[in-house]
Amino acid sequence: MDTPTLDAIADADLRIRPYAIETPLLEWGMLNDKLEARILCKAEPLQRTGSFKFRGAYNRVLRIDREAFPGGVVACSSGNHAQGVAEAARLCRVDAVIVMPSDAPKVKIARTSHSGAEIVFYDRETEDRNAIARDLCEKLKADFIAPFEDPIVIAGQGSVGLEMTRQAKAAAADIDAVLAPISGGGLAAGIAIAVKDQFPNAEIFCVEPKGFDDYRRSLASGARQKNDGASRSICDALLIAEPGELTFAINKDLLAGGLVVSDSDVRHAVAYAWREMKLVVEPGGAVALAALLSGAFETKGRTVAIVLSGGNVDPHLFAEIICSMKELASSKQ
Amino acid sequence: MDTPTLDAIADADLRIRPYAIETPLLEWGMLNDKLEARILCKAEPLQRTGSFKFRGAYNRVLRIDREAFPGGVVACSSGNHAQGVAEAARLCRVDAVIVMPSDAPKVKIARTSHSGAEIVFYDRETEDRNAIARDLCEKLKADFIAPFEDPIVIAGQGSVGLEMTRQAKAAAADIDAVLAPISGGGLAAGIAIAVKDQFPNAEIFCVEPKGFDDYRRSLASGARQKNDGASRSICDALLIAEPGELTFAINKDLLAGGLVVSDSDVRHAVAYAWREMKLVVEPGGAVALAALLSGAFETKGRTVAIVLSGGNVDPHLFAEIICSMKELASSKQ
Repeated sequence: MDTPTLDAIADADLRIRPYAIETPLLEWGMLNDKLEARILCKAEPLQRTGSFKFRGAYNRVLRIDREAFPGGVVACSSGNHAQGVAEAARLCRVDAVIVMPSDAPKVKIARTSHSGAEIVFYDRETEDRNAIARDLCEKLKADFIAPFEDPIVIAGQGSVGLEMTRQAKAAAADIDAVLAPISGGGLAAGIAIAVKDQFPNAEIFCVEPKGFDDYRRSLASGARQKNDGASRSICDALLIAEPGELTFAINKDLLAGGLVVSDSDVRHAVAYAWREMKLVVEPGGAVALAALLSGAFETKGRTVAIVLSGGNVDPHLFAEIICSMKELASSKQ
Repeated sequence: MDTPTLDAIADADLRIRPYAIETPLLEWGMLNDKLEARILCKAEPLQRTGSFKFRGAYNRVLRIDREAFPGGVVACSSGNHAQGVAEAARLCRVDAVIVMPSDAPKVKIARTSHSGAEIVFYDRETEDRNAIARDLCEKLKADFIAPFEDPIVIAGQGSVGLEMTRQAKAAAADIDAVLAPISGGGLAAGIAIAVKDQFPNAEIFCVEPKGFDDYRRSLASGARQKNDGASRSICDALLIAEPGELTFAINKDLLAGGLVVSDSDVRHAVAYAWREMKLVVEPGGAVALAALLSGAFETKGRTVAIVLSGGNVDPHLFAEIICSMKELASSKQ
């Protein structure tokens, strides 16, 4: 597969515009004071379907060959990619079947179904979702929409980076570093291509939950590494076995490294975003903020852009997190 | 007192800019589809201190006569004005004492104290907060910052309207109607002055919780009406006895009328904003959205701007609301 170019990202940026939201790049004086830095937050929970995934999905579904694939599209996803593809299919008026693990967050299942997609469940422990998807594609004459191993999907996610650079320039911000959540690696790859073009010295870091730091270890060693498969995390959007092949080929050259946060750091970040930023951010979407708040990344004196990548979270988990947070620290700001 | 002019609002808009956030005017395709309208949401929960109140407070505290009032500022508020004044005082480096009811939401008390203000509690049932504030002003040689009966405060709140008109024009939206929460009336008055200048045919409606519709009845009768004093509502930011004198003098000419929503409508709107818009909106801040979602205001075919005025809500109440919401309706969108 070809590496997506900056032109492909600029093209995606235009194509998705009628339906994708140009999410704001938000800045809070309070957060800047606290971290002695300038922090710019790309608020993708405000995106259509509640996460950045709509961008890549729409850019890809928009181009399916309707004659070759009369059955529409098939995708595998535990949640945000599912919603993105389902909504893209609804807008493009093609059928969609989504293969989801039976233990996916209910809110993500409900929202996927709400866009009109058919859902096929599988057991994460015993079944092979790719085999199920392949069979469906064949049976239905449908096209498979990969979550990240696809240059057109990566180009769509790259529009996050393109908007971010435009918005940073409009705010007279010279980006020193970008932190983004990583799972398969499509978002980070797309952002890195777009940001490096305008801010060649900016360092791009990916952030992962503890126990799922395959990308960090892969970047450090120069070759794709797997996770142990035994770890658990509340970051349901970021639980993956290993980096994508295409995304790693891009990211190994463009990323400065990987950062790791604990579930406890993530809970704190979700509660902080709720209380201080008034944004609903899901655990996996909050890892970059968690890296800043936990001190995993040193910000002092720097201009750092972070991606809050999504906000689709179970209400009971969210309620538990915001109710268990500690009171405000007694120090000012 | 003089009625604030459009120039005073434009002046406030410039003065508050270094610290106030130009909050985005957000639009969701999903909400537009649902209401068969174009809905623009001014997201003041993203404002510094989590509500629009910072705007008026900062515009006013910025101008205190430091020689005449060496003791700084005093304000009475159950919450958002308290936080606005406390934060404005911190930024302007003057002392602040806030008179708060002892039953104010804990999160608002904590955040007020966090900005460094001293808090004096009073009993809502038995004590007169204005008398307490007057005594404090005299004793401390401090200036009193009124929550809405002050043209400089109203001009500050009017910056919401000025930004909204600029942003609407940039989005090629011709505003037919504006819905804003109302309590004392400063926000609605400031917005009405700013919006009517650019969109003279736009209808401005205020929204109140059931049992606290003093403004609706006052506008209908042409004279200030009081509430019964026996009602209760979860909209803690909107519980007031009667319209302000100055604000009513403005609003009776500029407002088209008042709308009323139930606590149940408000709970639904808070949950909707959490789930679909990924914004944290407090009950009082969600009444305009509640008026749209409940059908209290007919939107079909119109371009309607609403103000989500704040997001400071107790975590336990918020958790209860999001966990008790019904599942997504089965109909598409």
